[in-house]
Amino acid sequence: MNTDILRGRRLGNLNAESVKYTASTVFDTILVNPVIEINKAHMVMLVSQGIVKKSQGAKCLEGLGNLKIGDELDPILEDVHMNVESQLTKIVGTNIGGQLNLGKSRNDQVSTAIRMALRTYLLKIITNLIEFRLIILEKAEDHLETIMPGYTHLKNAQPVSFAHYLLAYVEIFKRDKKRFFNNIVNLDECPLGVAALAGTSYNIDRNFTSRKLGFKKPTLNSIDTVSDRDFVLDFLSSAAICATHISRLAEDLIIWNSDIFNLINFNDRILTGSSIMPQKKNPDPAELIRGRAGKNFGNLQAMLTTMKGLPLSYYKDMQEDKNLVFDSYDVLKESILIANELIKNLNSNKQRMLYLANKGYTTATDFADYLVQKKNLSFREAYKISGKIVDYAEKNNKKLDELSMNEIKKVKKDLNKDVMKVFSVKNSVNLKTSHGGTSIKNIKTVLSKLKKEFK
Amino acid sequence: MNTDILRGRRLGNLNAESVKYTASTVFDTILVNPVIEINKAHMVMLVSQGIVKKSQGAKCLEGLGNLKIGDELDPILEDVHMNVESQLTKIVGTNIGGQLNLGKSRNDQVSTAIRMALRTYLLKIITNLIEFRLIILEKAEDHLETIMPGYTHLKNAQPVSFAHYLLAYVEIFKRDKKRFFNNIVNLDECPLGVAALAGTSYNIDRNFTSRKLGFKKPTLNSIDTVSDRDFVLDFLSSAAICATHISRLAEDLIIWNSDIFNLINFNDRILTGSSIMPQKKNPDPAELIRGRAGKNFGNLQAMLTTMKGLPLSYYKDMQEDKNLVFDSYDVLKESILIANELIKNLNSNKQRMLYLANKGYTTATDFADYLVQKKNLSFREAYKISGKIVDYAEKNNKKLDELSMNEIKKVKKDLNKDVMKVFSVKNSVNLKTSHGGTSIKNIKTVLSKLKKEFK
Amino acid sequence: MNTDILRGRRLGNLNAESVKYTASTVFDTILVNPVIEINKAHMVMLVSQGIVKKSQGAKCLEGLGNLKIGDELDPILEDVHMNVESQLTKIVGTNIGGQLNLGKSRNDQVSTAIRMALRTYLLKIITNLIEFRLIILEKAEDHLETIMPGYTHLKNAQPVSFAHYLLAYVEIFKRDKKRFFNNIVNLDECPLGVAALAGTSYNIDRNFTSRKLGFKKPTLNSIDTVSDRDFVLDFLSSAAICATHISRLAEDLIIWNSDIFNLINFNDRILTGSSIMPQKKNPDPAELIRGRAGKNFGNLQAMLTTMKGLPLSYYKDMQEDKNLVFDSYDVLKESILIANELIKNLNSNKQRMLYLANKGYTTATDFADYLVQKKNLSFREAYKISGKIVDYAEKNNKKLDELSMNEIKKVKKDLNKDVMKVFSVKNSVNLKTSHGGTSIKNIKTVLSKLKKEFK
Amino acid sequence: MNTDILRGRRLGNLNAESVKYTASTVFDTILVNPVIEINKAHMVMLVSQGIVKKSQGAKCLEGLGNLKIGDELDPILEDVHMNVESQLTKIVGTNIGGQLNLGKSRNDQVSTAIRMALRTYLLKIITNLIEFRLIILEKAEDHLETIMPGYTHLKNAQPVSFAHYLLAYVEIFKRDKKRFFNNIVNLDECPLGVAALAGTSYNIDRNFTSRKLGFKKPTLNSIDTVSDRDFVLDFLSSAAICATHISRLAEDLIIWNSDIFNLINFNDRILTGSSIMPQKKNPDPAELIRGRAGKNFGNLQAMLTTMKGLPLSYYKDMQEDKNLVFDSYDVLKESILIANELIKNLNSNKQRMLYLANKGYTTATDFADYLVQKKNLSFREAYKISGKIVDYAEKNNKKLDELSMNEIKKVKKDLNKDVMKVFSVKNSVNLKTSHGGTSIKNIKTVLSKLKKEFK
Repeated sequence: MNTDILRGRRLGNLNAESVKYTASTVFDTILVNPVIEINKAHMVMLVSQGIVKKSQGAKCLEGLGNLKIGDELDPILEDVHMNVESQLTKIVGTNIGGQLNLGKSRNDQVSTAIRMALRTYLLKIITNLIEFRLIILEKAEDHLETIMPGYTHLKNAQPVSFAHYLLAYVEIFKRDKKRFFNNIVNLDECPLGVAALAGTSYNIDRNFTSRKLGFKKPTLNSIDTVSDRDFVLDFLSSAAICATHISRLAEDLIIWNSDIFNLINFNDRILTGSSIMPQKKNPDPAELIRGRAGKNFGNLQAMLTTMKGLPLSYYKDMQEDKNLVFDSYDVLKESILIANELIKNLNSNKQRMLYLANKGYTTATDFADYLVQKKNLSFREAYKISGKIVDYAEKNNKKLDELSMNEIKKVKKDLNKDVMKVFSVKNSVNLKTSHGGTSIKNIKTVLSKLKKEFK
Repeated sequence: MNTDILRGRRLGNLNAESVKYTASTVFDTILVNPVIEINKAHMVMLVSQGIVKKSQGAKCLEGLGNLKIGDELDPILEDVHMNVESQLTKIVGTNIGGQLNLGKSRNDQVSTAIRMALRTYLLKIITNLIEFRLIILEKAEDHLETIMPGYTHLKNAQPVSFAHYLLAYVEIFKRDKKRFFNNIVNLDECPLGVAALAGTSYNIDRNFTSRKLGFKKPTLNSIDTVSDRDFVLDFLSSAAICATHISRLAEDLIIWNSDIFNLINFNDRILTGSSIMPQKKNPDPAELIRGRAGKNFGNLQAMLTTMKGLPLSYYKDMQEDKNLVFDSYDVLKESILIANELIKNLNSNKQRMLYLANKGYTTATDFADYLVQKKNLSFREAYKISGKIVDYAEKNNKKLDELSMNEIKKVKKDLNKDVMKVFSVKNSVNLKTSHGGTSIKNIKTVLSKLKKEFK
Repeated sequence: MNTDILRGRRLGNLNAESVKYTASTVFDTILVNPVIEINKAHMVMLVSQGIVKKSQGAKCLEGLGNLKIGDELDPILEDVHMNVESQLTKIVGTNIGGQLNLGKSRNDQVSTAIRMALRTYLLKIITNLIEFRLIILEKAEDHLETIMPGYTHLKNAQPVSFAHYLLAYVEIFKRDKKRFFNNIVNLDECPLGVAALAGTSYNIDRNFTSRKLGFKKPTLNSIDTVSDRDFVLDFLSSAAICATHISRLAEDLIIWNSDIFNLINFNDRILTGSSIMPQKKNPDPAELIRGRAGKNFGNLQAMLTTMKGLPLSYYKDMQEDKNLVFDSYDVLKESILIANELIKNLNSNKQRMLYLANKGYTTATDFADYLVQKKNLSFREAYKISGKIVDYAEKNNKKLDELSMNEIKKVKKDLNKDVMKVFSVKNSVNLKTSHGGTSIKNIKTVLSKLKKEFK
Repeated sequence: MNTDILRGRRLGNLNAESVKYTASTVFDTILVNPVIEINKAHMVMLVSQGIVKKSQGAKCLEGLGNLKIGDELDPILEDVHMNVESQLTKIVGTNIGGQLNLGKSRNDQVSTAIRMALRTYLLKIITNLIEFRLIILEKAEDHLETIMPGYTHLKNAQPVSFAHYLLAYVEIFKRDKKRFFNNIVNLDECPLGVAALAGTSYNIDRNFTSRKLGFKKPTLNSIDTVSDRDFVLDFLSSAAICATHISRLAEDLIIWNSDIFNLINFNDRILTGSSIMPQKKNPDPAELIRGRAGKNFGNLQAMLTTMKGLPLSYYKDMQEDKNLVFDSYDVLKESILIANELIKNLNSNKQRMLYLANKGYTTATDFADYLVQKKNLSFREAYKISGKIVDYAEKNNKKLDELSMNEIKKVKKDLNKDVMKVFSVKNSVNLKTSHGGTSIKNIKTVLSKLKKEFK
C-alpha cells in the first residue's frame, strides 16, 4: 500500500471512515481511460517541450501503455489520479513516475477527464436519439392515414393523423439532440495545465495537449478552470429536459393503452403481469420511464445545490459531479432504449381510433370555419352557431355526422347538403393544409424531407 | 428458470431490455428479510384462520425458514416477491408455495416491506443522532470557558462561549431526532392484506399480521394503501432537512479551519493533501458533507416528482422509491458518522479564539446596555452613543478595551472607571444570563440537564 | 424620513438599488400584526420586571395600540420591525419608543413573528382540510353503491365502490392534517428574548412572553434560535406533500372526465371553453391544481437551497423564507378550495361506471379465489386456470359473465352453475369484506365511524 | 361584462373561485404588447391572403392601434387573449373583431407571445451581463498587481493576482451570456397559425407572420407546437446556472469582508446595520444574492415538474410558465445589478491581501518546482523535500521567506542563496506564465484582448 505519495510523513494515515467517505474511487473507474490518455498526451508534450528527457518520457509512456487498472480502484489512494500515478510508479520507478505531474494537478486533470467521459456519453445519447427518431419516423410512415382523436385537456378536440402525432416527437427529439450537441460545444475547452489554480512555471504547451485530446482550445483563466462545472450542469439540465419529453410520451402511451381508451396495444414481450390478477397486462416499462424522470430532475437539483455558494477554485464538494452525471446518463440512455421498444412493439387499433376521432364533436371547428368561408360570417358568429349545433346533437345523443339536413337547418336555415362533408373526420384532417397542419399531404412532405435527412 | 408464475402462457418472455429496465431486483436485496418475515406472519395467520391447512402451513413455514436468498436476485423474476415465491416453490412444491399469496398481493407486500426496512433505518439514524449529540456534548464540556467571536453575517457580533455554539447543535439534532421519530409514527400502519387494491374475499385477520410485524394497526382503506408513499416522502424530507443542518456545521468548520480564521484545527488523520502543493492539509470530509446535502435534496425532489399527478392505486412509477430511500439513508448515515469524526478530531485554538472575540467592537452592545441600565438612557439613545465610541475607536485603530477614560469621556462625559469592565469579552459573555443566553452559568445548567437526559 | 435609527451617522443612506433589493417590506405586511403583538407582550414584561417604568410602559402600549400601519411599509426602513419602531417613536417620542428593543433584537423578533403567522396559516389549512374531508365524505355517502372499475397501471383491475375511492382521500387528507398539526407542535417554542444571538443582560422573563404569545415554552439556545428555520422547512415540506395528493386527485378527475372515459362530468360553472373549438368544455381548474404542485416543490427546494451551507446564527439569506411560505400557503389554500369545488360539482355517470367495471375481465381474481376456496386448488394453480378463461373470453370477444357453462367447462370440467355468480361485479365488490376492503358493508362501517368523528 | 365570447350560452358563468384560480390575467399584463403585435401581424396577413377584406382589416388594425389596455386585465375574461379580443370588439363591433382568430387560437398565440416577451428579457439579461463584465474588467485593471492568497478548500494555496480572480468572472459570465444567447436561438421558431393543435383550413401564410414578428421561421408540427415549453425550461435552466455563479461571487465577497479575513471592504452605502449592535456593518446585499439563488433553482424545478408526464398538446398546467419565467427574470436581473453595485463599491485592502498571501506556505509548490527545474529531481521527490521544509517552518513558527539559508540547508544541503527568491509571493505569481496562468504578463495580455472585445 503506497499512500505516501500524498500523505507521506506529513499527514499519516487517513482514518478508515474518512477513506470510505472521501474516496471517489467507486465512480472514478469510468475515468480510468481518459486519465491514462491525458497522462500520455501530457508526457508527450513535456518531452517535446524539453521538460522531461526523451528516454524518461519513453519509459513513462511505455509504462502507461502497460497499466492494467481494472474495475477496482484502491480507495486508500483517494481517486483515479493517484491510483494511476501509484501503479505507474510501481512499474517505472519514482524517478520516472514522479515526473507525471509536472505542470498539472488533479484539479485540472479531473475536469479534463470528466469532460472527455461526458463527451463520449453525449455522442452516445445523440446517436440514440437519432436512432429513436428513425424508429418513430418509420412508425409514422405506417400510420400516415390512421385517423385518431387529437386531444387538448384530454378532451376530444380535432381529428389528427397518428403519423402527425408521432412526428411531433421527431421534432421534440431534434431539439434535444441540438441541446446535447450544444453541451459538447460548451465543454470544448481543455483545462489541462492550469494546475492547482494558478497556472504553472513549467514551459508547457497547452495548445498541444488540448489538440491532442480533441478539444478546440485550452481554457483561458486558471482560477475559473478549476472552479467550473458548468459543463456538468449543462448536461444535467439537458438530461432533465429530455426526460420530461420521454415522460410525456410514456403518459400518452399509458392512457391510450388503458382498457378504456384502447387506442393502442403492445406486444406481450414488453408487458408484465400481476401477482394475483390473472387478466392483467401492465405497461410497466412506460410507467418506469415516466417515474424515472424524477431522478434526472433530482440529479440536476443536487448539482445546482452543490455548486451554489461555493467559493471560487477547487472544493471537494464538486466531487459529487461524477455520480450525478453517470446516473443521469444511465437513466436517460436506458429510458430512450425502452421508449424505442415501446414504439417498436406498439400496435394501433385503427378502427377504435377512427371511431373515437368522431366522438366529442371534433369537427365543430370545421363547421364554424365552413360558415366563415362559405356563409361570410365572422368567426365569432360562426363559433356561436357551431356551439348551438353541438348542443343540439348532445341533447339528442347524436354525433355531428348523424344529424339530418332537417336538424341542421333548425340551427341555420340557409345550409345545404354540401355542409355534410364538413362533418367527416377524414375531411377535417385533410383540410388542415396550413404549414405545420395535420393534412396527409403535409405529412407526406414532411416525411420525405425527414427521410432525406436520415440518408 | 421458473418465470411462468406470472407470465405463464399468457405473456411469453419479457424482452431482455425490458427485464433490465423494469426489474427492481438490484435494490430489492434489502427487502429480502422483511419479505420473508411478512410471508411467515401471513402464513401463520392463514393457518390460524383455517384458510390453509396446518400441515401445509407448517411445510411452508419450514421452507421459508430454509430459504437461502443471497445478494443476487434473479431479474427475470422481476422483484423480491417473485424471487421468494419462486424459490420457495422449488423447495416445497407448487401445491404449498402456491398458497403464499392467498389474500395478499405484491402491492400491499412491497409497501409493508419498505415500511419495515425504513423503520430499521430510522431507528439507526436516531441512534446515530443520539451518539452524535453526546459527542458534541462532551466537546462542549471541554470548552465551557472557551470564548470565541459570535458572528452574524460573518461579521464579529458578540463574544460567546464555544460550548454555547456546540450546544446549538445538540438542540438542532434533537429536532431532527424528533422528526425521524415522527416518521416512524407516520408509517406505523400495516398495509398487508389489502391485496391488489380492493381487499380480499378470504377471511384474513389483518390485526394479527399487523401486530406480528410490529405495527400499531392495519391501514383502513385498501385503495389508499396501495397508492400511498407518504412514509417515503416523510423520510426523504426529514433526511433533506437533517442534511441541511450537517452542511451548516461543515461550513462553519471549513471557515474556522481556514488558515486565516484559524480558530480550530483538525487531527491529520481526517485531512487530505494536495497532489502538487506540499503544504496543504484540506478538510475534505467537511466539504463532502456540505456537497452531499444536494443529493438528499435531489432525492426528495425526485420522489415528489414521481408521485405528482399519479392516479390512485398502484403504478410502477412508485418502484423508484427504494433507490431513493436507500441512497438518502446512506448519505445521511455516513455524513453523521463523518461529522462525528470531525468533532472528535477537532482542536480549538483558544488563544486565537479569545483574541478574535475582542475584534470588531463586539462589546458595543454591552456598552449600550450599560448606558441604559446605569445612565437611564433609552435604548436608541444609548445605541447612538455606543455607535459614536465605535467610530472613535475605529478611526484611532484601537479596540474598545484599549480606550482610555479620557477618550471615553469625549463621547459621554459622565462616565467613570466602572465602565471599563463592560468592554471585557469575558464579562460580556457572563452578562448574558437571560434564559437561553451564553453566560457560563447558563451553559452549566443546560449541560447538567442534558447529561441527565443521556443517562 | 426617519432612517437614522439604524444607519444614523455611521452608515449614511443606503443606495436606491440596495434598498429595493434588500428591503423585506413587500412581504412583511403579513407580519405587522404579530410584530405589534410581540412588542406589546414584551413591553408588559419589561414593566413587570422593573426594566421599564410603568408610566413609560403605559404610554408605549397606548402608542402600539394606536399604530396605523397599512399595506405599505416604507422600504427605506428595511422591514416591519423598523417600520413599527419608527412609527411608534413618532407618536410617543424617542425616550419611550427607544425602549422597545431592550432585551430583544430583530433576529429573535422576526422568527417569533413568522412562527405566529405560520401558526395561523396552519390552523386555516387544517380547517380547510377538515371541511374538504367532509365534502368528500358526503359525496361518498351518495355513491355507496356506485360500482366503478378500479385501476392499477390504468388497466382495469377489480371493481370497487366509487365511495371507497373517495374515502381513500379522506384517509390521505387525514395524514396531511396530522402532518400540518405536527408543524404547529414543531414551531411551538418562543424565540423572543434571545436577542441578536447571545442572549441579553436585561433581567427579562422569557417564560412570560412565551406564554403571552401562545407558545409552549421559550427556546433553549440563543445561537440555535436565531439560526433556525426548521419550522419553515417543515411547513414547505408538508405543503409539497399535500400538493402531491391534490395533484393525484386532479389527474384522476381529468382522466375520468375525458370524452373517452366519461365516468364523470362537471357542472359547467367550473369548466372553461376554447377560443376556436365550440364544442369544448375543459376542466381547467383540475389541470391548474395539477400544474401548481410544481410551485410547492420549487418553494421547498428554494428554501432548502437557501439554508444549505449557511453558517450558524443570523444571515440575511433567511429573509427569503417569508415569500416562499406565503406563496406555498396561497397555492395550497386555493388548490384545496378549488378541489372542493371540483368534488361538489362532480356528477358520476353511474351507468357508464358500471358498464366499464365489467370490462377488462375484472373478476378474474374472484374466479381464481373461487377455485381456491371451492375447488381446493393452490392459488397459483387457480391463477393459471383463471388466466386460461380470460384468454378464451378475449379470443371470443366476450366478457366473463357472457360465457356459457359449456365454455367455462372447457377450461375446467368440474364447475357448475354456482360459478356464474362469481363473475358479477357487484358480487365481486361485496366479497371484499376483509378489513379495509371495498365491500359495501365495510364502507358503511367506515362512513358511520367517520361521521361521528366530524360531529 | 362581455364573457359570452367563449362561454356564451353553452357554459354559463364560471364560479367566482374558479375565475380567481384559473385566470392568468395577473401575469398576462406582460404579454399585452406582444399579443397586440401578434394580432396586427396576423390581420395584415389575413388581408394580404384575401381571407379578410381590406376594409375590415383596416378597421381592425385601427382598432388594435387604439386599444388602451392598462395593468388590470379582467379575470372574468380569463386571459390577455380574450381581454384584447373583447376590448377590440367593443370598439369595432363583432363583425370585425370576430375575424381576429381566423386561422389561429390561444394555444399558438400564447406560445408566440411568451417567446416574444422572453426574447426581450433575454436581450436585457445579455446586456446586463455585458455591462457587468465591463465593470469587473475595470476593477481588474485597477488590481493588476494586487497580490492575494489564492484558496483551494479555503486553505491558502498559492498567491494570485486579484485581477486574475476577477477575470475568472469575466469568463464565467461569458459562458452565461452564450447560454442565454442560445436560448434566443432555441426559441426562434414562430408558433402562430398552428391554431388549436391541428393546423387550420384557412389559406394563411405562416412565413409572413413569422418574419413580421422577428422569428427565423414557422414551427413545423402543429401538435408539437402547442405542447412545447422547451424555451421556458431552457431559460429557467440558464437562469439557475447563472444564479449559481453570482451566489459564488457573493460567498467569496462575504468571507473576504468578514472582520477576520478583512481582504476587502464595501462603501457604507450598500451596507446595513443591526437593530441592537451599534458596531455592525453587514453585507446584506451579498447575502441576499446568495440566498435568492434558491428561488431560481425552485422555479426550474417547478416548471420541470409541471411539464413532466403531461400528455401532448395543450393543457392548462402550462399556464404556470409565465409566473416562473417572470420571477426568475426579476431575481436574476436584480441580482446582477446588485452584484454590479458590490463590485463598484468594493475596496481592496492591499496590505492585508499581500500579508495573507504569504501565510500558509503558499510558495511551497514553487520550491518543489525549483528543485525539479534546478536540481534535476523528479516531481514526487521534490514534493517530499518541500513538505519537509514546510514542516520545519511550521514547527518553528516561521514563514518560508523568514527561513535562513542554514535552516534551508538542513533540509537539502546543496541549495544556495538563489533559492530565496522562490519564496517571494510576487515572484511566485509572475512565474505562472503558462497559458491561463496568473502572471501579471498573462493578465495584461488578457485584459487588452478583452478591452478590444468591448469596443
